[in-house]
Amino acid sequence: MAGTDSSQPINLAPTPAIILCEPQLGENIGSAARAMANFGLWDLRLVRPRDGWPNEKAVAAASKADHVLERVTVYDTLEAAIADLTLVYATTARSRDMQKEVYGPEEASGAMAAHIAGGKKAGLLFGRERWGLLNDEVAMADAIVTLPVEAAFASLNIAQAVLLMSYEFRRTSEAGRALPFEVEHEPAPRTELVGLFEHLEGVLDQSGFFTTEAKKPSMVNNLRTALTRGRFSSQEIRTLRGVISSIDRRHERPNPNRQKPQKPEQPKD
Amino acid sequence: MAGTDSSQPINLAPTPAIILCEPQLGENIGSAARAMANFGLWDLRLVRPRDGWPNEKAVAAASKADHVLERVTVYDTLEAAIADLTLVYATTARSRDMQKEVYGPEEASGAMAAHIAGGKKAGLLFGRERWGLLNDEVAMADAIVTLPVEAAFASLNIAQAVLLMSYEFRRTSEAGRALPFEVEHEPAPRTELVGLFEHLEGVLDQSGFFTTEAKKPSMVNNLRTALTRGRFSSQEIRTLRGVISSIDRRHERPNPNRQKPQKPEQPKD
Repeated sequence: MAGTDSSQPINLAPTPAIILCEPQLGENIGSAARAMANFGLWDLRLVRPRDGWPNEKAVAAASKADHVLERVTVYDTLEAAIADLTLVYATTARSRDMQKEVYGPEEASGAMAAHIAGGKKAGLLFGRERWGLLNDEVAMADAIVTLPVEAAFASLNIAQAVLLMSYEFRRTSEAGRALPFEVEHEPAPRTELVGLFEHLEGVLDQSGFFTTEAKKPSMVNNLRTALTRGRFSSQEIRTLRGVISSIDRRHERPNPNRQKPQKPEQPKD
Repeated sequence: MAGTDSSQPINLAPTPAIILCEPQLGENIGSAARAMANFGLWDLRLVRPRDGWPNEKAVAAASKADHVLERVTVYDTLEAAIADLTLVYATTARSRDMQKEVYGPEEASGAMAAHIAGGKKAGLLFGRERWGLLNDEVAMADAIVTLPVEAAFASLNIAQAVLLMSYEFRRTSEAGRALPFEVEHEPAPRTELVGLFEHLEGVLDQSGFFTTEAKKPSMVNNLRTALTRGRFSSQEIRTLRGVISSIDRRHERPNPNRQKPQKPEQPKD
């Protein structure tokens, strides 16, 4: 379907960021850039691309989506790649044993469009070609997005998944869904949420919460999943960090207001 | 997005035929077959494929969409390829000076789904890689379908156009309402959430978190608001209560795993 009209200006309107985690093939990065350009997306972020960046094969596959390629940003960690976002969805074709909401592309796009219309930033995570996103990457997202593929033939290439989500975002956002009123709840940028996680996990390391090193990763993912779902504001994150510090320091500094425990303490060992 | 479940049977439900007019590259035919398979389409028809049929490159690109490739039919003329259809749409990215209706993918898919639900057959025409459909091919169609691409970057490859239309058909028809998997997330009964609140607030009373009695009610409400939003499951509530107890008891019982604090402690008073 040829039909590009090069007399038209490129439009860099607010749209979701596309974050590719450890993409292996330059062709796929380029095809993803092209797919984004087709539907007006332009903020492409790469976490540890296997063959580095820039990548000649990506340029060849991008079919002149130069305005996307020129703006690609590269990160060492997923946390850094999503630091400025306040709504993050993980795309996955497999069920994860995680207590996260699962949305179809239409619901997810609608939520992203509303979020972006409110002046905030959203992004979509895509995994590696071979095995998708890791569980600890999915744990960082607010929810899961999955495409309504045929279960018997679910294998979608990354660029195709990016194309479908870009298409769906454009379709949904053009419909323009303004609600008559909204509650002002602004989730904190991801970097603050990560700060909360690291603070809590550091304290729990000290307190012996993680019973074995082998169990720790899944315990951390479960905690992160539970704490991501609340979409805490910056103020709430400061409060929760205060809560952690307060409990953690309880026995270190005497507190004049301290009362007797209301319930008998658990037996100590 | 890996995730094919090969234990699932392939479903050959009534869906639109995809008709490729003079496709040039086997890769594109194979990718189109794969895209169809992703969303449950299977009736692929080729009009005068440049490199003949079967085509090894198509097989390689189809990623095992064998049930589509095995059923491919080849025709000498477009008329023969669409002979049994009663609703035909031509996909094109360019405006044609023709008195034909132009639909978006959603309207076109809705009309095809209704047509097929009535026991009739529908099909979608796609043009050659270089210059799309000829005007006399478009003239054979009931209407034109065009995708909502960015005018400044409209170039879509055939397989991508097939993917988007297949996705849209599935989304519009009933099958697309079901996602391939869902996570059962069941929020805990409120009494368990209240138990978490009271546990936490009791510990915070002890730790001196509530700076004054006057401020305590609003601090409690803010914490409860933040912690309600996550819609925690029973398991998550047990985990969070374990977190609170673990931090709270950190200084009470010696922990063999305890390491040195990573940051210098605050001065104690």
